[in-house]
Amino acid sequence: MHGKIRIERNPNRKTKPGLEEALGFGRYFTDHMFMMDYEEGSGWQDPRIVPYGPISHDPAAMVFHYGQAVFEGLKAFRTEKDEIVLFRPDQNAKRLNRSCDRLQMPQMDEEFVVDAIRTLVRLDADWVPRKKGSSLYIRPFVIATEAGLGVRASSRYSFVIIMSPVGAYYEEGLQPINILVESHYARAVRGGTGNAKTAGNYAATLKAQALAKEHNCAQVLWLDAIEKMYIEEAGSMNVFFKINGEVVTPSLSGSILEGITRNSIIHLLKEWGIPVSERKISIHDIVEAFENGTLEEAFGTGTAAVVSPIGSLLWNGTLMSINQGNIGELVARLYDTITGIQYGRIEDSNSWMISC
Amino acid sequence: MHGKIRIERNPNRKTKPGLEEALGFGRYFTDHMFMMDYEEGSGWQDPRIVPYGPISHDPAAMVFHYGQAVFEGLKAFRTEKDEIVLFRPDQNAKRLNRSCDRLQMPQMDEEFVVDAIRTLVRLDADWVPRKKGSSLYIRPFVIATEAGLGVRASSRYSFVIIMSPVGAYYEEGLQPINILVESHYARAVRGGTGNAKTAGNYAATLKAQALAKEHNCAQVLWLDAIEKMYIEEAGSMNVFFKINGEVVTPSLSGSILEGITRNSIIHLLKEWGIPVSERKISIHDIVEAFENGTLEEAFGTGTAAVVSPIGSLLWNGTLMSINQGNIGELVARLYDTITGIQYGRIEDSNSWMISC
Repeated sequence: MHGKIRIERNPNRKTKPGLEEALGFGRYFTDHMFMMDYEEGSGWQDPRIVPYGPISHDPAAMVFHYGQAVFEGLKAFRTEKDEIVLFRPDQNAKRLNRSCDRLQMPQMDEEFVVDAIRTLVRLDADWVPRKKGSSLYIRPFVIATEAGLGVRASSRYSFVIIMSPVGAYYEEGLQPINILVESHYARAVRGGTGNAKTAGNYAATLKAQALAKEHNCAQVLWLDAIEKMYIEEAGSMNVFFKINGEVVTPSLSGSILEGITRNSIIHLLKEWGIPVSERKISIHDIVEAFENGTLEEAFGTGTAAVVSPIGSLLWNGTLMSINQGNIGELVARLYDTITGIQYGRIEDSNSWMISC
Repeated sequence: MHGKIRIERNPNRKTKPGLEEALGFGRYFTDHMFMMDYEEGSGWQDPRIVPYGPISHDPAAMVFHYGQAVFEGLKAFRTEKDEIVLFRPDQNAKRLNRSCDRLQMPQMDEEFVVDAIRTLVRLDADWVPRKKGSSLYIRPFVIATEAGLGVRASSRYSFVIIMSPVGAYYEEGLQPINILVESHYARAVRGGTGNAKTAGNYAATLKAQALAKEHNCAQVLWLDAIEKMYIEEAGSMNVFFKINGEVVTPSLSGSILEGITRNSIIHLLKEWGIPVSERKISIHDIVEAFENGTLEEAFGTGTAAVVSPIGSLLWNGTLMSINQGNIGELVARLYDTITGIQYGRIEDSNSWMISC
């Protein structure tokens, strides 16, 4: 435990954006934020909720120079019974600690992290939108704050939680996206930081992402950096393929983010008795399945969109259209089930939802 | 060009640390800093020198989340004639732009960057220490400042230059260091960001660095992430080996930082008629040279220490002592020559030094 959370209420509540309008993603922020500081020797201290506002750091703060920065992303949903619930926040707290460990940053009590999130959401509960498919996106993050230019782990950190009301990822309903299979740039490699949710991983992808856009693709599909052959993950999603009745997803190699939606989908498929396996999948396997007509569906998974049907893959100049560019039956069922559980329309038999 | 630099002098000059005492590295900062902002559509604007102090950002500023952050490091020296000079700052400005390009960040006019550095150094000239081997370390850096959580390149950035008086890296004269050859973790990979000077590259090394310390080693020697065999660079230095009279250093593979000291050393060796080559070098080549007695010297190179003799390499539990752990003749000559040029004791025949 890191002490009792002190609450300083914001006397100047913001004018909310139209919470029932198109909110986009991560553009508006709520009235409050959570903060807690770490200092070597005394640990995490002074947990507090304060008015949302700028944070001030020495220009030599290590986060600006040596990149010790990790984050999480999860959502609070308003159910049809008007309760506010979180989807598997304990898993985010666990992964946050794993990321911290990889980046040589101090860990936190996981129950405390979940409690901090719940306390903050309760305080800004009127920011959780009601429109179908919308939610309150929660962004916990940890940054190194010691002022110093020696290359070493910082002795000071800040843990911050901010929140943003977000619209449905697909305002018009699920839409298949085009994906560019990236063959030049690399996101991560065995022994690197690919399975940590750290800022530098994302910076490394932006150039490839921009090139994908030039090819009219929404995201990049990353191949492994060593053999440039095995599929890792898409831009900011894990990926699944349904081939000849079996669902396959790349096994966690150390360079792939351990997605919580990914884990939930594997769990559901097993419950449903649909064959699912985590294994190495090469782009050549996918091309072969495409050519012999057994590539039935493909989709990405992540917190933002839940599932994103993949309409086509562009690989070495060849466009592979999947399921004639239509939304597959399985991806639709997964989307309906997970969002159904999140919004309280379907029974939460796995106890994934935590009320605030 | 990015406009005329506005100067706001600091009315509250700091009490300087004893500039003739042990200053360490990057612990004290001068009275002023340079800042300039970028906004998509209008470009770099409002270049200014202001009192050194905290910088304030929205907690959703993209640098905290998606790691768009690049930096440079160079030094100002006080010569024996009491002039203040910079070592090859044009090369730092060029590399800063290359780093920006890789991270999908806007570039700057290189002459303007050098001019900004010179203007700032002139204003804080009394912070350039006089003690032998000491200098003023200059840290230009660029960070993403747009507040938003969508994963994409920021539309706003800040360029900041801060400065820190630093002591001689080896206060007692050159000292050979022990290096651990890292075989589990990876720093960078082909197609990644290894040749950009970006924050995330450093965060990725801290865990291995901590393990090296446990083995009584000052730094890690990185092998390539693909075959785990070819030498890349040491912790924060490029590396050179002298084998049977020839000096070799890993060729720039895309995952190695293009060191300015590295480049200067290759240039000097060629001037001196000493055989030098940039090529792939495997750890097995080094072990073989060690075993047959032809591994004559090894050293790291970088802005902080100029050159660091390597006294031993620890590889898979085997300790290879180099030159009986003594400082080699070549490394001493390189150190004396480069520092001689920097402090104005040796003629600068390559026009590397720029006066402030």
